[in-house]
Amino acid sequence: MKTDKIFSTQPVKGTSDWLPEELKIRHYIFSVWRGICERYGFEEYLTPMLENAEIYRAKSGEDVGQKELMIFVDQGGRELALRPEMTPSVTRLISKVYATRPKPIRFFSIANFIRNEKPQRGRNREFWQLNCDIFGSTAPAADWEILRLALDIMLAFNPPEGSFILGLNDRRLLDGLLDLADLKESELRIKVIRILDKYSKLKKPDFIEMMQKAGAPDGAIDICLKFMSSSSVVELLDRLPALKDNIGLKAINDAIEALKLTRHDSYVKFRPDVIRGFDYYDGLVFEIFDCHPDNQRALFGGGRYNGLAGLFGAQSFPAIGFAPGDETTKLFLESWGLLDRLKTALNETAFLPLLDKDMETQTQILAHKLRQAGVNLEAGLEPLKVGKALEYANKRGFAKMIIFGADEQARGIYKVKNLLTGVEEESSLNNLSLKK
Amino acid sequence: MKTDKIFSTQPVKGTSDWLPEELKIRHYIFSVWRGICERYGFEEYLTPMLENAEIYRAKSGEDVGQKELMIFVDQGGRELALRPEMTPSVTRLISKVYATRPKPIRFFSIANFIRNEKPQRGRNREFWQLNCDIFGSTAPAADWEILRLALDIMLAFNPPEGSFILGLNDRRLLDGLLDLADLKESELRIKVIRILDKYSKLKKPDFIEMMQKAGAPDGAIDICLKFMSSSSVVELLDRLPALKDNIGLKAINDAIEALKLTRHDSYVKFRPDVIRGFDYYDGLVFEIFDCHPDNQRALFGGGRYNGLAGLFGAQSFPAIGFAPGDETTKLFLESWGLLDRLKTALNETAFLPLLDKDMETQTQILAHKLRQAGVNLEAGLEPLKVGKALEYANKRGFAKMIIFGADEQARGIYKVKNLLTGVEEESSLNNLSLKK
Repeated sequence: MKTDKIFSTQPVKGTSDWLPEELKIRHYIFSVWRGICERYGFEEYLTPMLENAEIYRAKSGEDVGQKELMIFVDQGGRELALRPEMTPSVTRLISKVYATRPKPIRFFSIANFIRNEKPQRGRNREFWQLNCDIFGSTAPAADWEILRLALDIMLAFNPPEGSFILGLNDRRLLDGLLDLADLKESELRIKVIRILDKYSKLKKPDFIEMMQKAGAPDGAIDICLKFMSSSSVVELLDRLPALKDNIGLKAINDAIEALKLTRHDSYVKFRPDVIRGFDYYDGLVFEIFDCHPDNQRALFGGGRYNGLAGLFGAQSFPAIGFAPGDETTKLFLESWGLLDRLKTALNETAFLPLLDKDMETQTQILAHKLRQAGVNLEAGLEPLKVGKALEYANKRGFAKMIIFGADEQARGIYKVKNLLTGVEEESSLNNLSLKK
Repeated sequence: MKTDKIFSTQPVKGTSDWLPEELKIRHYIFSVWRGICERYGFEEYLTPMLENAEIYRAKSGEDVGQKELMIFVDQGGRELALRPEMTPSVTRLISKVYATRPKPIRFFSIANFIRNEKPQRGRNREFWQLNCDIFGSTAPAADWEILRLALDIMLAFNPPEGSFILGLNDRRLLDGLLDLADLKESELRIKVIRILDKYSKLKKPDFIEMMQKAGAPDGAIDICLKFMSSSSVVELLDRLPALKDNIGLKAINDAIEALKLTRHDSYVKFRPDVIRGFDYYDGLVFEIFDCHPDNQRALFGGGRYNGLAGLFGAQSFPAIGFAPGDETTKLFLESWGLLDRLKTALNETAFLPLLDKDMETQTQILAHKLRQAGVNLEAGLEPLKVGKALEYANKRGFAKMIIFGADEQARGIYKVKNLLTGVEEESSLNNLSLKK
């Protein structure tokens, strides 16, 4: 045992310690997520942080399911992996209970994940995610509910008007586009989808070059360009009228109409460049974008994936969901100044210093009685003069300090000092509720 | 990619899926833990689930820090481990910030841990733990606060009288015992401490045999037996009066006196067999025991450990703390029937079925308005007749169902049906708060 070595006090690269000041912010985000999910009747679940590695290898794609997977072998020789995402786990869980639970199943979870990837802004090795899904309904109303839920989660943070937008698309519309462009061969289609996914990050000549290299004829590239540069459904149909009866386009229009009913439509826009890389999406797809000039990025996304359950041999079931992360959400809130109030808020815990060693017994009793009356209270352990106690209380950011010395004890009272205003109020020792 | 294989829907052995019914119980436990910690002014922190493996190898002892450690190598060749306990991580964290934060530091966390051990009743591979510690105070009042906090955490679950007991001991009293027994050689002392730790699980002849084998003389064994079989401090001093001035015994007596002030003393008892195996304890130690005949076991324990910080090269700081686990707490609550009310509680989410396809638009609007008014509400996605809707609502355990069909719409009302009493009340569509 190398007990003589001195170890670093820093956390593992790509992970973070959360001191109370930071955890307060994360808990605020989590509580907003949880509150809105429960507002929609979603039920919270949790799966273990370990899964058999094979389920990620089979489903999570090359990066998440292979190189970024953290694997170890247990005492029984099994390969276990830390969960890098929730979809395979929740699909396993739903497969187990699907037959016996009333449908649809509305589930959410808030959990930590690990990816063995290079840390970068907005992406940590350990991160937390909300996962919301509806299983067992193909109704368009399920799509609309998921869109409203995603928007209400954003709105619950009280962001300013125009600070974010939900970009909406549909994989069936993309299929229609590929049909229209006469791209029939399935490997070519997959390649083209991947290039379309990168459209907004590419310059036009680079996009064209990539499409050509992939083997797309010029006519097809032209059609794809017309599609990708459309800024509205009207413009799209003006350019490519043959898509008019596409079922995906109808789903987009229906969703926007439905969102009008609840005044969510001003946050939603058709976006041809929202593709969502994963192969399993097969209907509506969406992404929420931060519109802040310093933080222009997709915050999170989601969509419909109706065919994952086969992996666990269960009855197939439809699914639609999305998953925002803690770090990108925090960056959004910071870019719009939405955490300022939380960061400067005073500590609502009251502070009861021990002002006199002889008062130790009485101070312990008062502390206990106040706690029993529901007051959150930090009690001093060692004697402190009032001045030092005030200094400590200010350093800790307390809103209130309780003054209880020999004099107060003799008079059967304690004082509550508001540390913001300096005002002191007296309370009888028989009256143990602290006023706001 | 082995996409054709069918995978098991079961979680990895020794881990559990928490469906909403189960997560509700865990969240109840966590919220009690969190609430009482905050009542005492403790602040919540969180560390990453990964640490450099070496810190556990150095500190966590043979089982937890070696065989049970789950280790893997990251892309940079570093050995990382899943945290099997919090003490090394929080010691690292405190070492990092000790110099700059006001003291004492009262910290707690609620986090998941992994040990690669054989699963057994009350011990899972993945488990959750509350960790509470006070850093930076050697005041006896810190010990008393930790004991009160541990007891109030138990009492917050409303257990019946006599359902648990806190056994109190002190490592300095054990040192006094070994001195009195004239066991001076340090390796022998460690061996004897380990045998004393097993005392309550051993028959007397086996205990004597183990002590003899370890090399303890008969006189020493006799003194240890007198100590271990004492059921009170009075009995102990009657048998071994030489321990009268022991500093550890004084700390035990002072703690019991202090706990009298807040009427916590009836839950506390001197227990000579509370040893706490870990080498780092050096003052008060305690364990809380379930007194239920079906579940007689230590629920959790803690104590004072004043010398761990050296590991991170920081200024040394005193510490005292404890750590209850989710699984043992749940077994305690179950053995005393304290979860029954929670398990049978109705779902407070309201259910608004879609009673008529033609009402879809109006139902979506009503759902949204009720949610905006603060009602947690599950809305039906597909049309259901009232009878089927009631069936579903009962299956889901809802307390309330909202009835809103064409008739109600025409009258400008909706009905709220209490599913327990069957009583229906009407509300105007302009009045959107659901009565309790």
